[in-house]
Amino acid sequence: MTKVVNQSRTRVMDAALRERARSVIPGGMYGHLSANALPPEYPQFYQRSQGAHVWDVDGNEYVDLMCSFGPVILGHQHPKVERAVAAQLAEGDTQAGPAACMVEAAELLVDRVAHADWAMFAKNGTDATTICLMVARAATGRNKVLAAAGAYHGSAPWCTIRLDGVTPEDRANIGYYVYNDIASVEKAVAEAGGDVAAIIVSPFKHDAGFDQELVEPEFARQLRALCDRIGAALVIDEVRAGFRLNDGGSWEPIGVAPDLSAWSKAIGNGYPLAAALGSASYSEAASRIFVTGSFWFQACPMAAAIATITAIREEGAIPTMVHIGTLLRSGIERQAADAGLPIRQTGPVQMPNLKFEDDDDFARARVFSGAAAAHGVILHPRHNWFISAAHTEHDVDRILAATWEGFRAVRKQLGGS
Amino acid sequence: MTKVVNQSRTRVMDAALRERARSVIPGGMYGHLSANALPPEYPQFYQRSQGAHVWDVDGNEYVDLMCSFGPVILGHQHPKVERAVAAQLAEGDTQAGPAACMVEAAELLVDRVAHADWAMFAKNGTDATTICLMVARAATGRNKVLAAAGAYHGSAPWCTIRLDGVTPEDRANIGYYVYNDIASVEKAVAEAGGDVAAIIVSPFKHDAGFDQELVEPEFARQLRALCDRIGAALVIDEVRAGFRLNDGGSWEPIGVAPDLSAWSKAIGNGYPLAAALGSASYSEAASRIFVTGSFWFQACPMAAAIATITAIREEGAIPTMVHIGTLLRSGIERQAADAGLPIRQTGPVQMPNLKFEDDDDFARARVFSGAAAAHGVILHPRHNWFISAAHTEHDVDRILAATWEGFRAVRKQLGGS
Repeated sequence: MTKVVNQSRTRVMDAALRERARSVIPGGMYGHLSANALPPEYPQFYQRSQGAHVWDVDGNEYVDLMCSFGPVILGHQHPKVERAVAAQLAEGDTQAGPAACMVEAAELLVDRVAHADWAMFAKNGTDATTICLMVARAATGRNKVLAAAGAYHGSAPWCTIRLDGVTPEDRANIGYYVYNDIASVEKAVAEAGGDVAAIIVSPFKHDAGFDQELVEPEFARQLRALCDRIGAALVIDEVRAGFRLNDGGSWEPIGVAPDLSAWSKAIGNGYPLAAALGSASYSEAASRIFVTGSFWFQACPMAAAIATITAIREEGAIPTMVHIGTLLRSGIERQAADAGLPIRQTGPVQMPNLKFEDDDDFARARVFSGAAAAHGVILHPRHNWFISAAHTEHDVDRILAATWEGFRAVRKQLGGS
Repeated sequence: MTKVVNQSRTRVMDAALRERARSVIPGGMYGHLSANALPPEYPQFYQRSQGAHVWDVDGNEYVDLMCSFGPVILGHQHPKVERAVAAQLAEGDTQAGPAACMVEAAELLVDRVAHADWAMFAKNGTDATTICLMVARAATGRNKVLAAAGAYHGSAPWCTIRLDGVTPEDRANIGYYVYNDIASVEKAVAEAGGDVAAIIVSPFKHDAGFDQELVEPEFARQLRALCDRIGAALVIDEVRAGFRLNDGGSWEPIGVAPDLSAWSKAIGNGYPLAAALGSASYSEAASRIFVTGSFWFQACPMAAAIATITAIREEGAIPTMVHIGTLLRSGIERQAADAGLPIRQTGPVQMPNLKFEDDDDFARARVFSGAAAAHGVILHPRHNWFISAAHTEHDVDRILAATWEGFRAVRKQLGGS
């Protein structure tokens, strides 16, 4: 175990900024990075980031287990990515049209992702999933889309997690099935009356606040066969998991190819980019839809994507993340047993997910996360965490020092399960 | 008149990239920056940008009258903006949470835009308009939104300009009125049966391919009164025009305040940022909707926005754009008369819009744009152009040298009207 870092972390600047934010931002903050519902030790505002480490606005340093909720896959400020961006930025970024690197980025994605024959770029993961649905609808002339109940596919009205501001018509064409349950998909298809344009699915079940669930290969094959039978597009939402599980499409190891896939987050190591990829038979339909954005042709994020995707392979980023994630999982498993606190760790080790038993209100998770932050580790109480290729065994030691404090705090404040 | 620039511009690299793009991008390119339907002299791919000038991938230099379709308002690579971005980038960009500059950017927008008490940031103009509608729906508990027929409010299914990939339900809650025609708005309200959450309107009518039309102050006041009467939100879509007409909300000079406004494009001088602004009475509703994006809390575009909005005022960007736009408009007016080619120039001079008489198929506009590109000026044949504060009187001379060649080419190839 490494030394326990400074526990008397002040949060004066963070508190002052939160106060100012409450005056000019609804609720003080919004979206997935709002710290409103998080333990008070968890910072809201950050000063800087380097490798696997982040500093809050009060200068407190942390090992970053969130990686900006996924985008940072090689570590913050990875030299090759930053050099590629600096070179492009000196030339131009949001220009009168795309730069050559847009074509190169599309070629690289088509090369790396087996099912993909083409790419369209956008900014948000939500853009990418929405484009996939539009392409599927344009290709099939049908309206309905089936999604797994509880899955997150973005924050547009058709998919966001709260219904405020959403009309019934926004959801009228979405049917729901149960992940890994082909009978439920067949039932949803029947309910849609044959009007199914697409079935959208995550590479694994990664609903926030729940145990994660790897896809059953048989379910994936049945989905593919079902889509072929009814003439619907199979869409994989790779936004959260893409390039963390596999150096290509996440279902390539199980031999199931989608027709369309949605990407974002990690493909540019933090630079804002999303991509919809598709097979050749959907290219004509993709050329008919009209989607665009003022910044979709920005050159720097595409230069970042080329550097990032290249480095993921060249630097063995995935084996590194698996190694670090495995060390972390086994260390946490031992600590939980030592503390007498039953937990479940589920999903791929690169995207750690910890649930306390008997913790439906996340009271234990909240104390755990707060204590971890107080001891220098940023980890979310409800959402899965993210390993990057910049995390080292030394970082694992530091994380485990903090998680041990987390287990102790849970034990002390809430007792055993 | 300045010298006519090199007319024997090669497009070898551009042609090669277009060929490669056709293999990996549907239709070869998509969205508003596709050159597919543009004259062959108009480049698709760009190498670099500086001030009011851009260079295509073959090294040909142009005066840029498109400003990336609006984002570039101070000129490409404005020193103060680039310095602010470089300083923030050295610290962190897409981090574990927002940086302090998010609060500062929100405070600055609230200070500059009279109606705004709060800000929420996103990436796309489409995000900002969609957030405004969601907030209005959450606040009113109603579903319907009225928009001007033909107005562009983004490329989500509820508003994109083509219906491929769009379901009837995506448009079920949108009613349409005629810009500057309050009777048509009253009619649309009646058709909506009282379920109107919001009326969305552009600061002026800037539909691509049509004459532009300034808002009639009386229409703006009637819209405000109508929204107050029926309890709907008045939403101004400032995405295209924001900060080019006024150093604050575009309707402040006529004394009409919206409840919500959508911003993007120019607020970060090319860095990817959008913002929904609102009045205090909509803050609670805004805090209830769930909208977010992986890159919405990126620090660099917020640092860019602070530098941009500050420089717009400090450097007198709007008077500069008005001066340059006025010079250009009067020069073009004289040339058209000399060439015996009737034209109409409409809308604010900072966002020039030229239509040839008797040119419904844009044949004249196309020849004009092609000849301008061949003589070193990027201007779109259908969409309005954009002046930046970096354009000089010398640039106007160069533009006019190219537009004169444009008028000559129209006259030669298509004759007079």
